[in-house]
Amino acid sequence: MSRGIQDERSLARLLWERGFAVMRAPASGAATKMARPDLVVGSRDRGLQFAIEVKTTRRDVLYIQGPSIAQLLEFSQRFGCQPIVALKFKGQKQPWLFIHPYQLLTTPGLNYKISLKDALLKGMDFKTFIGEGEQTRLLA
Amino acid sequence: MSRGIQDERSLARLLWERGFAVMRAPASGAATKMARPDLVVGSRDRGLQFAIEVKTTRRDVLYIQGPSIAQLLEFSQRFGCQPIVALKFKGQKQPWLFIHPYQLLTTPGLNYKISLKDALLKGMDFKTFIGEGEQTRLLA
Repeated sequence: MSRGIQDERSLARLLWERGFAVMRAPASGAATKMARPDLVVGSRDRGLQFAIEVKTTRRDVLYIQGPSIAQLLEFSQRFGCQPIVALKFKGQKQPWLFIHPYQLLTTPGLNYKISLKDALLKGMDFKTFIGEGEQTRLLA
Repeated sequence: MSRGIQDERSLARLLWERGFAVMRAPASGAATKMARPDLVVGSRDRGLQFAIEVKTTRRDVLYIQGPSIAQLLEFSQRFGCQPIVALKFKGQKQPWLFIHPYQLLTTPGLNYKISLKDALLKGMDFKTFIGEGEQTRLLA
């Protein structure tokens, strides 16, 4: 459930190296009720703009708090960009997976979750996410 | 020359209240060479997206360091949004003025400056900046 600041930085760096502009959110949400994601990224050349919620886990199910997704959706709706959840299941061969928020499952407590298996079935790999090449089959 | 964190927050709040999504940059630029502005804001409804450099002064000339503008332009170019400089000349009736970076004058040290008078002549007021109504004449 950790935001994984180091992972967020490394994803920011990956996107920057592929030509994206990248803005990271301040570390604390101090004294504001303005919805915001972890990253806002865009590439004029690729015609892509995303608000991204970044989540990392060492387990095989990843949980995301309801308000995080609500903020992601509100920000994206206001801004006019695509909401995306970037998942990192540590220790996996496929380090980053990207899914649309509606692909998450809801929990009885009004939070969200997704299993590694589901993420591999439904998610995009990094290249697909940034609009390069064909999606490789992530789960046989 | 101060970044004016309080002023930046108050501008962020103003834009949020008018329906914009607002992302503020982290307080420190720690350990990254990724260009970034002070704010990234967008409104799907208004069809506007800006990267904003925020500058505040109590004097009647405002100076901006060259690298700040270089970062603003690089971010905007990559992202695909408009670069804007938000100026606050404290103590003035017109609290915020918005100008395009190319409206700044260069200094011999490769930095930038703009006088209050120039800003009033060339700048947009808040309403014009957010696409509401006619520009009012700021300087008679």
